[in-house]
Amino acid sequence: MSDVFTHPWLGGLFGDTEMQALWSPEAQLAHYTAFEVALSHALEAAGRVPQGHGAAVAATLEASVIDPASLAEDVAHDGLPIPALMRRWRAADPVHKDALHTGATSQDVMDTALALTLRAVSSLLARRLRTLDVALGNLDVRFGDRPLMGRTRMQAALAIRVADRLSAWRASLAAQAHRLDASRAGVERVQLGGAVGTRHAFGDQGQAIADAMAAQLGLSASDHAWHSDRGGVAHYAACLAGLSGTLGKMGQDIALMAQQGLDDIRIAGGGGSSAMPHKSNPVLAELLVTLARLNAGSLSGMQHALIHEQERSGAAWMLEWALLPQMTLATGRAVTAAQALCDQIEDMGGA
Amino acid sequence: MSDVFTHPWLGGLFGDTEMQALWSPEAQLAHYTAFEVALSHALEAAGRVPQGHGAAVAATLEASVIDPASLAEDVAHDGLPIPALMRRWRAADPVHKDALHTGATSQDVMDTALALTLRAVSSLLARRLRTLDVALGNLDVRFGDRPLMGRTRMQAALAIRVADRLSAWRASLAAQAHRLDASRAGVERVQLGGAVGTRHAFGDQGQAIADAMAAQLGLSASDHAWHSDRGGVAHYAACLAGLSGTLGKMGQDIALMAQQGLDDIRIAGGGGSSAMPHKSNPVLAELLVTLARLNAGSLSGMQHALIHEQERSGAAWMLEWALLPQMTLATGRAVTAAQALCDQIEDMGGA
Amino acid sequence: MSDVFTHPWLGGLFGDTEMQALWSPEAQLAHYTAFEVALSHALEAAGRVPQGHGAAVAATLEASVIDPASLAEDVAHDGLPIPALMRRWRAADPVHKDALHTGATSQDVMDTALALTLRAVSSLLARRLRTLDVALGNLDVRFGDRPLMGRTRMQAALAIRVADRLSAWRASLAAQAHRLDASRAGVERVQLGGAVGTRHAFGDQGQAIADAMAAQLGLSASDHAWHSDRGGVAHYAACLAGLSGTLGKMGQDIALMAQQGLDDIRIAGGGGSSAMPHKSNPVLAELLVTLARLNAGSLSGMQHALIHEQERSGAAWMLEWALLPQMTLATGRAVTAAQALCDQIEDMGGA
Amino acid sequence: MSDVFTHPWLGGLFGDTEMQALWSPEAQLAHYTAFEVALSHALEAAGRVPQGHGAAVAATLEASVIDPASLAEDVAHDGLPIPALMRRWRAADPVHKDALHTGATSQDVMDTALALTLRAVSSLLARRLRTLDVALGNLDVRFGDRPLMGRTRMQAALAIRVADRLSAWRASLAAQAHRLDASRAGVERVQLGGAVGTRHAFGDQGQAIADAMAAQLGLSASDHAWHSDRGGVAHYAACLAGLSGTLGKMGQDIALMAQQGLDDIRIAGGGGSSAMPHKSNPVLAELLVTLARLNAGSLSGMQHALIHEQERSGAAWMLEWALLPQMTLATGRAVTAAQALCDQIEDMGGA
Repeated sequence: MSDVFTHPWLGGLFGDTEMQALWSPEAQLAHYTAFEVALSHALEAAGRVPQGHGAAVAATLEASVIDPASLAEDVAHDGLPIPALMRRWRAADPVHKDALHTGATSQDVMDTALALTLRAVSSLLARRLRTLDVALGNLDVRFGDRPLMGRTRMQAALAIRVADRLSAWRASLAAQAHRLDASRAGVERVQLGGAVGTRHAFGDQGQAIADAMAAQLGLSASDHAWHSDRGGVAHYAACLAGLSGTLGKMGQDIALMAQQGLDDIRIAGGGGSSAMPHKSNPVLAELLVTLARLNAGSLSGMQHALIHEQERSGAAWMLEWALLPQMTLATGRAVTAAQALCDQIEDMGGA
Repeated sequence: MSDVFTHPWLGGLFGDTEMQALWSPEAQLAHYTAFEVALSHALEAAGRVPQGHGAAVAATLEASVIDPASLAEDVAHDGLPIPALMRRWRAADPVHKDALHTGATSQDVMDTALALTLRAVSSLLARRLRTLDVALGNLDVRFGDRPLMGRTRMQAALAIRVADRLSAWRASLAAQAHRLDASRAGVERVQLGGAVGTRHAFGDQGQAIADAMAAQLGLSASDHAWHSDRGGVAHYAACLAGLSGTLGKMGQDIALMAQQGLDDIRIAGGGGSSAMPHKSNPVLAELLVTLARLNAGSLSGMQHALIHEQERSGAAWMLEWALLPQMTLATGRAVTAAQALCDQIEDMGGA
Repeated sequence: MSDVFTHPWLGGLFGDTEMQALWSPEAQLAHYTAFEVALSHALEAAGRVPQGHGAAVAATLEASVIDPASLAEDVAHDGLPIPALMRRWRAADPVHKDALHTGATSQDVMDTALALTLRAVSSLLARRLRTLDVALGNLDVRFGDRPLMGRTRMQAALAIRVADRLSAWRASLAAQAHRLDASRAGVERVQLGGAVGTRHAFGDQGQAIADAMAAQLGLSASDHAWHSDRGGVAHYAACLAGLSGTLGKMGQDIALMAQQGLDDIRIAGGGGSSAMPHKSNPVLAELLVTLARLNAGSLSGMQHALIHEQERSGAAWMLEWALLPQMTLATGRAVTAAQALCDQIEDMGGA
Repeated sequence: MSDVFTHPWLGGLFGDTEMQALWSPEAQLAHYTAFEVALSHALEAAGRVPQGHGAAVAATLEASVIDPASLAEDVAHDGLPIPALMRRWRAADPVHKDALHTGATSQDVMDTALALTLRAVSSLLARRLRTLDVALGNLDVRFGDRPLMGRTRMQAALAIRVADRLSAWRASLAAQAHRLDASRAGVERVQLGGAVGTRHAFGDQGQAIADAMAAQLGLSASDHAWHSDRGGVAHYAACLAGLSGTLGKMGQDIALMAQQGLDDIRIAGGGGSSAMPHKSNPVLAELLVTLARLNAGSLSGMQHALIHEQERSGAAWMLEWALLPQMTLATGRAVTAAQALCDQIEDMGGA
C-alpha cells in the first residue's frame, strides 16, 4: 500500500496509466538520450568537435539499450543516474566520446528530460480538460434548467438552477486550464549550463548550442541556465495544485449533493460496502477531495525546494523528484475521475 | 510574541509598515465604502433605484465614520463585519437605503476590498523589486568581476565570478516579478454576485452594473461572480510564495557566503549576540530563509482553501483571511530585507 | 485584516484574549526577567559570583521597567531583543553586572520564557478542555438517546444515537488532551547552554545551576541544552494541531448536521447575512474547521524548523517564533469556540 | 521517476527494501486474513456463530490465495479492496460464511492491518535506531576529543569538541525514539466498530470480541472504535516526521561540515559528478535533508486528515493511505542513510 498510484489494487482507484507512462523509466531514458543526441549534433554543428563525431555518438546513443534497474547501484552512490550512463555510453564509443555530454552536467540532462515530460503532461491534461468540459456541457444540456437549492456556508440560501453550479465549475476549470497553459513556457525549456551553470565550456557558443538543441527538441532555449532557479517548476506545480484543487471543490460539491436529505444528484455505480451492500458511496467525488488535499500539501514542499543553495542544491532538487511526478499523477487522475464521475451522473437537481 | 509582523519588538525585524498600512482597518473600511458607493451609483445609473438615491447614499457613506473596534461584537456573531455595517448605514439614511447594498452580499464587498488591497500590494512589490534590481546591479558593478568558488551540492566545483551568482538571483527575481504581475488580472476584479453568486437581483443588468463598478473602482469586471472560484486568489498567493522563495534562496546563499572559511561576502552591521559581542550575524539573510519557509507553508493552506463547498464556504474563505494578508506581509518584508541586505554588503568574492 | 487573532473586528471572531495575554510583551519581559533573576541567584549560590551580587542584580531586574516598543530598533539590528536588554540592565547596575546573564546566551532566555509561556498555555487548555467535556456530557444527558442517522462516506448508513456521535467526539478529545499533557515535559524545561550550548562557562557547575534555576522557575532541568534540538517544541506543536484537528472534525460534523434536509441539530444565534437576514449560519462550526486547517499547515513549518544548522539556526528558530504562538491562539480559540457552540445547541437528533 | 522509493534507479538512493516489504501487497493480504481469522474465532468463542463455523472459515481463509492485481478493478468501483475479498471468501465457503466478517466493516479490516504493519514499522525503526546510536558512539570514541568550531547562525562562535555535536545529535535522536515508542500505543489497536462504529451487531459482546481479537493479534483492544478518531495515527505520523526531521538536522550539519573551507568532516565514497569526476558529493547528507522536508510536508496532510466527516470519511481516510506509508518509507530510509553516512565518515574535527 506504499504508493497509491501504482499499487496493485489501490492503483485501480488512484492510478492513471497514461500519465504513469509519461514517467516510465523507458520514457526518461529516451529523454536523456534525446538530450545527448541533440547536444552531440549541436556540438558538431558549432564546430566544437570534429565533423562526424556528433552524428556518430548520436547513432551509438540511439542504438543503446539500458536496463533501468542496472542503474540502481550507481544511483545509490552518485545520487543520480547520469554519471553511470555516461560511463556506459563513453565505453560504447570511446572514439567519439568527445562529442558526448561535453560541457554539460547531470542536471542539464535531467531537467531537459523533465521539460520533455512536462510538455507531454501538459498536453495530456489539456486534452482531457477539453473532454471534461464537453461532459460538463452535456450535463448542462440535460439538467441545466432544473432547480437546485443554492447553499452558502452549508446552509440553504436561495434557489438557483443546476446550470448555475455547473457554470461555476466550468468557469473555474477553464481558468485553471488557462493558468496551466500559461505556465508551460516556464518549464518547457532546454536546460544547459554545465558544471556550474555558466556554459563556460562552450566558449561564446553556449547560446547557439542551446538554441540548436531547443530547435531539435521542440523546447525553448532559455538565455541562461536555470539550475538553481526553480521558479518555473514551482509555478507549474502551483498550477497543477490549482487544477486539482478546483476539481476537489467539484468533488466536494458532488459528495454534498449526494447526501440523502439533499438528494441533489444521483450517481450510478457508487462504491459498495462490505457491511452495507445497499450503499452507493460517492467514491470518485471523495477521491477528488483527497487528490486536491494531497497536491495542496505537496505544493508546499515544491516551494521549499526553491531554496537552492548556491549553483545547485542536491537536497532541494531531490525534493522536487519526490513531489512533482506524484503531483502530475494526482492531477491526471483527478481529471479522469471527474470525467468518470460526470459519466456516472444520472440525475441532478429537483423536479 | 504572537504576531511577529506587528509585535512591539519583533516587528522591528519582521515588520513592513508600508505593507501593513495597506491592510489597516481604516483602509479596509475605505474599500468597503468604495464598493458600496460604486454599487449605489451603478444602481442609479441602471435605473434600478429612483434618480438621486444612489448619489444620496453615496454621500452618506462617504461621510460616515466607523470605529473598527465597535464591529468586533457583531463579527463574533455574524462571522463577518458587513451585516453590522449595513445596519448602521441603513440607519444613517433610511430614506435611500434601497440604493445601499441592494443585490449584493457580504462576500461581494469583502472580495472587492481584497481586490483593491491586492492591487496596492502588487504595485508596492513591483516598485520595490525595481529598486532591488538596481541594488543588485550596483553590486554587479562593484564586485561582478571578482572570482567566486562555484559550489554545487554544497561542494566546491569550479570558479565562477560574482556576476554569475548575482545574475542568477536577478534573473530568477525578474521571472518572479513577471509571474506576480501576470497574476494580478486574476485578483483585480470586482466581485459581484449577490446572495448565491448569480446576480439574480439585477435582472439583465448584472453585467452592466458590474462594468460600471469596475470602471469606477479601476478593476476589471468578471463576467461572473467568483465567490467559490478561488483559483485567482490561490494563484496570486503562489506568486507571492514564489517571490519570497526566490529571495529565500538569495538569503540562504548569502548566509553560506558569510561563513568563516568561505568568506565570500562581508556584511556591515550584522546582528550582535548577548554572549559573543564580536559576532556579526547575517540576520537579514536568515530572515529571508524564514520568510520563504513561512510562505511555503501558508501556500498549502491557500490551496486547501480552493475546496469551497457549494456557492460559498465560510470555512475555506476564513482560511484565506488568516493566510493571505500574512503572506503579503512576509513577501513585502522579504523584499525590504533583501534591499537592506544589499545595502549592507561591503565586499563580495575573492581578490 | 492582517492578523485575524488581534484584528479590531475579526478578533471578535478569531480572538482569544486570555491566550493572547499569555504572549503579551509584558508577560514575555516578565519571563525574561525571571530567567535572569533565577540565573543570578543560582550563580551566587554556586559561588561563581561574589556573595550578594546575585541578589543585587535580581533586585535591579525586578525593579526595571522596559517599554516594549523601545526594543524594536535593536531587534531590527540584532535579530532578537536580549542583547539590548542586557545593555540596559548592565547599565542599570554596573557594579554587579558580573552576576547578570553570565554564561548564558539569548536563546537561553527566550527558550526558557517559551517554556514558562507554554506551561501557562497548557494549563489554560487543560482547564478549558475539562469544561468542554462537561458541556458535551450535558448534551449527552439532554439528547443522547435521540436517534441520528449514522453516515459514512457522507452517505446514510445505519441509525445510531446522538450519544454515539458525542462519545466519538469526547473520546477523541480526551485522547488529544492526554497527548498534549504528555508533551509538556518536552517543553517545560529550563534552557541553559551558553554561547554554543555546552555550558562551558559554568565549569563543572552547569547542571547544578540549571537545577537551581529549574527549582526556582518550576520547570525541569534538562541535562543538556536543547538549543538545536527542537523535537520537544515540534512535538508540542503536533499536539496542538492534533487538538485543533479533532475540534475541526467536530465542527465539520456540526456544520453537516445543520444542513437543511438533514436537520440533525438546531443552533441558536447563528451568524446573520447581509443579503439574507433569515439565515442562521453555523459560523463557529465553520471556524473550527478553519482553525484546524490553519494549524495543520503551520505544523508543517514547525517540522521544517527541526532542521537547525549546527549549534543554533537563526532561520529555523525564527520560523518557530512566527508559527508557534499563532498555533496556540488558534488552538485556544478552537476550544472556546467549541464551548460556545455547545452552549448554542438547542436540539440534536430526531424525535 | 514517479515514486522515488520504488523507482528502478532512484530506488537505489531512496529505497528501503526492508520497510517496503512491510507494506507489500502480500503482507497486507496476510494482515487482512489475520483480522478475519481472529474475528471468526472470536465470534465462535462468543457463541455468536455455531460451534465450528469460526474455525472452518479461518481454515478457508488461511488456505486462500489472492492475486493482488486481481482486486484492482473492484477497488476502482468500491474504493477499497475488502468488499471484493469478502465476495471471494464467502464464495469459497458459503456454508460457514456467517462466521466471516460478521459485524465488521472494511475499515475494521484495513485499520487493523495498519496497526499490524505499524507495529512492524516501529520495531524495525527502533532496532535501527539502536544500531545508529552505536555508530554515533563509535564516532565519539574515534573523534570526540577533536576540536570543532561551534557555529551559531552559521557564524563561527566558540570552539567546541566533536563530542559536543555528536551528543547533540544523539540526545535528540534518543528523544525522538522515545516519542515514537510512546506513540505506538495509539496505533497498535484492534479496530472493531462495524458499519457505523458502534459494534451494534455484537450485542453486548463487542468488547469481549475485540479483546479476544486483540489477544490473538498481539494488539490492544480499544474500548471503542476509532474509525473517525484519527488522532493516534496522526500523532504517530508526527513522531515519524520528528524522527526524520532530527536526522535532517544531522544531515544538514554534515553537509555544512563537508564544505571546503570548513573541512570539518571527511566522507568516503561521496557521489560522483558527470561533469567533475573529482567531486565527492555528500549525497546521503543531502538525502537526509530531503527526506526530512518531504515528511514535514506530508505531516500537514495527515493533520488535515483528522477532519473526518461523521462516522467515516472516505476523502480523509484515503489521504492517509497516500501519505502514511510514504512517511514510513522516508523515515526508514533516513535511518539507513544516516547509518551509511556514519560508516562513511573517515575523519571529523580538527587536529
